[in-house]
Amino acid sequence: MERELSPARQAWCAARAKIAACAEMVWRLGADDPRKVVHGLKVGLALAIVSHFYYLRPLYDGVGGAAMWAVMTVVVVFEFTVGGSLYKGLNRGAATLTGGGLAIGVHWAASKAGQTGELVILNGAVFILASLVTFSRFIPVIKTRFDYGATIFILTFSLVTVSGYRVDQLVNLAQQRLSTIAIGISICLIICTLICPVWAGTELHLLITSNMDKLADSLDCCVEDYFTGKEDRRTGGYKSVLNSKASEDSLGNLAVWEPAHGRFGFQFPWSQYQKIGAALRNCAYCMEALNATSHSQIQAPELMKKHLMDACMKLSSKSSEILRELSSSIKSMRSTSSSSSALMAKEIKEAVEEVKRTLSSLPSNYQLSNEEDVEMLYRVKKQSLMESLPLVSFAFLLMEISVKVDAVDKA
Amino acid sequence: MERELSPARQAWCAARAKIAACAEMVWRLGADDPRKVVHGLKVGLALAIVSHFYYLRPLYDGVGGAAMWAVMTVVVVFEFTVGGSLYKGLNRGAATLTGGGLAIGVHWAASKAGQTGELVILNGAVFILASLVTFSRFIPVIKTRFDYGATIFILTFSLVTVSGYRVDQLVNLAQQRLSTIAIGISICLIICTLICPVWAGTELHLLITSNMDKLADSLDCCVEDYFTGKEDRRTGGYKSVLNSKASEDSLGNLAVWEPAHGRFGFQFPWSQYQKIGAALRNCAYCMEALNATSHSQIQAPELMKKHLMDACMKLSSKSSEILRELSSSIKSMRSTSSSSSALMAKEIKEAVEEVKRTLSSLPSNYQLSNEEDVEMLYRVKKQSLMESLPLVSFAFLLMEISVKVDAVDKA
Repeated sequence: MERELSPARQAWCAARAKIAACAEMVWRLGADDPRKVVHGLKVGLALAIVSHFYYLRPLYDGVGGAAMWAVMTVVVVFEFTVGGSLYKGLNRGAATLTGGGLAIGVHWAASKAGQTGELVILNGAVFILASLVTFSRFIPVIKTRFDYGATIFILTFSLVTVSGYRVDQLVNLAQQRLSTIAIGISICLIICTLICPVWAGTELHLLITSNMDKLADSLDCCVEDYFTGKEDRRTGGYKSVLNSKASEDSLGNLAVWEPAHGRFGFQFPWSQYQKIGAALRNCAYCMEALNATSHSQIQAPELMKKHLMDACMKLSSKSSEILRELSSSIKSMRSTSSSSSALMAKEIKEAVEEVKRTLSSLPSNYQLSNEEDVEMLYRVKKQSLMESLPLVSFAFLLMEISVKVDAVDKA
Repeated sequence: MERELSPARQAWCAARAKIAACAEMVWRLGADDPRKVVHGLKVGLALAIVSHFYYLRPLYDGVGGAAMWAVMTVVVVFEFTVGGSLYKGLNRGAATLTGGGLAIGVHWAASKAGQTGELVILNGAVFILASLVTFSRFIPVIKTRFDYGATIFILTFSLVTVSGYRVDQLVNLAQQRLSTIAIGISICLIICTLICPVWAGTELHLLITSNMDKLADSLDCCVEDYFTGKEDRRTGGYKSVLNSKASEDSLGNLAVWEPAHGRFGFQFPWSQYQKIGAALRNCAYCMEALNATSHSQIQAPELMKKHLMDACMKLSSKSSEILRELSSSIKSMRSTSSSSSALMAKEIKEAVEEVKRTLSSLPSNYQLSNEEDVEMLYRVKKQSLMESLPLVSFAFLLMEISVKVDAVDKA
């Protein structure tokens, strides 16, 4: 008896541990970003309102067909960010209108032909339009802005063309559907915008500034780690900058749809954020190389490191200072004064010069006594260069970024 | 008269030029990848078949409600890759089944309560389930595998719960809908798989190998450009590797759904491709740094470059040879023999040693005569190191990659 129970109990324990791990993961997901939980509740609320609407209004006493569209719209259109909901809502509305209108037109034309002609025209129209619009979804502009609209256009056009074959009161039906879809979209947008709105633009803004701060932190830590030999957890911060392209692009595309909110005006230059993001990624690539060098198998001797430490630390702290300054100026949406940015550019140039000077002054610190020493000296010099070089090129990249960001501030 | 015509004609010319540019862009899009055109035609065909089905079968003589679902399924499920269609089709089928089943269960429970109780239970169930499932879409596993299914689950559950308030024959209706959805999914999958199928797995395979080749090409070209002073167009090839993470991830996620096809068996280790992709990206980060150094404002003198040229060229050609070897072994799906990979690893190690040796032998080539010369020598040495260093760290990264890819081949 006990033998039989034991594996079962083991399995039960393993399953319980797994469930507990899952539950903890889910809990942390919600605790880290409570807006995700709120988003779930918002969708539930929107659906409850839509279905109430459906129960109570005598408008929908007939078939459940038209009311269905309101529910469907809410489920499909409701997105995490306001920009996402607006993108889907506007696309859905416009596509339903144009697709339905075109289908009614085709229908009218087909009804003039005989019964066979009608079938040919309707089928031909569905085939040709579906093919064309599906192909058009590969065009970059349409892909980023109207992808969802293209799908809904095909859907509405096919549905109306097909169903119209049986139903006579097409225009009436179309009106009903449009009104229900409009109700669905309005409920979505009202709830999405009024209750704890998540703006794609604000998210993008925060992502970019936090990436800047992370980059500044990990630059400082990486250089400090290298010279002190400690391991700081924040050194890896630049890694998340490397892979943020996808989320930056999608947030940037959605932010375009958002109306003026908070400190972001109408037609805010969101594409500038994507440019800053690209410049930051360039910077992060360099960090990756710098980090690889500092963890390389070959390490410079301590004496060597000490000699270079001050100059390198100064350069890295100046660089990260610029990044932090830029980040805080973006945060507060004020442009850095050109005099202060010129000052910082001058300071960083001086720091670069100092690193160069320290490097070339290195050999004079050592007394060359014999061949071996010379050899050793060269080796040492090579390795110190190994670590300082990425720093110098990093400084160059930083200068480039500061130029770019200045352009953004002016925009 | 002429004055009025002139701006109109100008506008017309500008518009015509714009339209011509657009048309050419679209034409090139189709000519570069004819499969995109074929995809459009496939969707058109699937829709034409589904609507035919609808016209002819007496099954759908009643309301257009049920037949609509077949059309909708085709429009929404049909994706460019087989994996995408399977992912959406299976998700849609499973979610409709579970969502509908659960809704009927809730309905049955609600019907036992009074009229007020029924309303409360139905509304409560919609609110709670919609909130829970929407939140669950943020859980990583569900996001990558079942995101679409979660949406459809909410949709079906809400629709059935809401519509069931009026319609008695829920089970009958559910059966009808399921069968039409099944018909839509089957038509999609049959057309998608039989007519010029685009497999996500094959796409991923080609993307990874072409990225490897691009990296090898641009490594060769970059080093050659640096020493010869020419500009090769292929040098920028690594840039597309930097940004391929998003497409690799999505293709990898879709490839999991595909059945065995061509040389890819069931449960092929697709995640290994993502690991190779990450290793390649690491390599590309290094290429970025290397490229930045070779385009830096400070350039080493020609004499210096000549001295290092042979060793650097050898190292880069060895490295790119390994990359090409790996790429061709992945292309032909055979694992590289461990002896040949050991040989290549040895060769690359030797090449690295040679670069190091050449670097340390540099100073003996110059006669030091006075202070200025020494200064100049140091400057020269520094700069040569500036360019050779990334190459060395690059070689390290390459070794790492070869180790990783070996592991993949063994898998």
